[in-house]
Amino acid sequence: MTPQAPTPAYRRLSVEERRVQLLHAALTLFAHRPPEEVSLDDVAEQAGVSRPLVYRYFPGGKQQLYEAALGSAADELRLCFDEPREGPLPARLSRALDRYLAFVDQHDTGFSALLRGGSVAETSRTSSIVDGVRRAAAEHILSHLEVAGPGPRLRMTVRMWITAVEASSLIWLDEGKRPPVDELRDWLVEQFLAMLAVTARRDPQTGALVEALAADV
Amino acid sequence: MTPQAPTPAYRRLSVEERRVQLLHAALTLFAHRPPEEVSLDDVAEQAGVSRPLVYRYFPGGKQQLYEAALGSAADELRLCFDEPREGPLPARLSRALDRYLAFVDQHDTGFSALLRGGSVAETSRTSSIVDGVRRAAAEHILSHLEVAGPGPRLRMTVRMWITAVEASSLIWLDEGKRPPVDELRDWLVEQFLAMLAVTARRDPQTGALVEALAADV
Repeated sequence: MTPQAPTPAYRRLSVEERRVQLLHAALTLFAHRPPEEVSLDDVAEQAGVSRPLVYRYFPGGKQQLYEAALGSAADELRLCFDEPREGPLPARLSRALDRYLAFVDQHDTGFSALLRGGSVAETSRTSSIVDGVRRAAAEHILSHLEVAGPGPRLRMTVRMWITAVEASSLIWLDEGKRPPVDELRDWLVEQFLAMLAVTARRDPQTGALVEALAADV
Repeated sequence: MTPQAPTPAYRRLSVEERRVQLLHAALTLFAHRPPEEVSLDDVAEQAGVSRPLVYRYFPGGKQQLYEAALGSAADELRLCFDEPREGPLPARLSRALDRYLAFVDQHDTGFSALLRGGSVAETSRTSSIVDGVRRAAAEHILSHLEVAGPGPRLRMTVRMWITAVEASSLIWLDEGKRPPVDELRDWLVEQFLAMLAVTARRDPQTGALVEALAADV
């Protein structure tokens, strides 16, 4: 709220540095307010630059800046799933969930606004960025399961769990970040194993996987 | 695609009958095409009336018609959950899921377009109609569980399952409506019981519920 003097242009950031700086400022604002409540003036103020400078980098205005910020958040989210193929699967899932839930914690309002849909800034482009993250998460998990040619029942189970993780992080935000994040993470890992066990009853491929996981713990 | 002569105005439908007829025509079109591919001309043709007549009933044009059609679909979806409190819970869930999955089957494209978000016709109003259906579903299920004052862990489990049902119906449509709908329904019921069992490990209220359900089968 305290107005800041625009930073003089002789700060000599490179084009790429400046872009990153503006995206970072935008992401900070979009993280805690719905997009319709963030103006380009706010972004300029947050970055300590002039409004025309923001427009020079994002001539498409707020929508372009929002999509770029979203793309950069999506890259950050994808990194959450980057987990070495070492040790028991539940421990790997726990570590990935810890990173994901820390992201949710840091970007609470923006995260909800985006996933709840109906935001004025939502378009088929923003939806496809979000869908890209979901798909990447599913591929990461399937690669960790080390199943050659995962069939439709296994894929459905993994995608269903990813949606369940998303839904429960929104509910977690709604409930004032309760239960504690460690409990939420353990509960989500256990839900995944339970979902796999249900699918295993009618899908031999998932059945073999569940047996392998049980032997691995 | 075959042009139909507009039905003459002397068909003497009441205002309410005419409204229902137009909504029904709109819903049929929105069910199988994304909203951006449905024009008011299409709706007039489908209903066998003139375009000005459609505008007389929906002066807000396509967006208003879309929202009204969505509201009427939401009412229909709410009816799916209307299930007498009789017999074992899994059988009740199965019957409700049969109705819900029949709805998904009949409204495939429109259902996906709506739930996937990013549609041009999506606004905070349409999102809140969809959220209203989700909330109604959660309340229905909680009332069937007959738990006095369901706590946050039980509520989170129920909401997570509802999202999982939604996600798996979208995946089911993606996969050309496979596996067969009966298998999908049984799998979803089993997933619900498994999710409750996981929550029961750390939530005494859900624990008591799971015991009661086991005794009831």
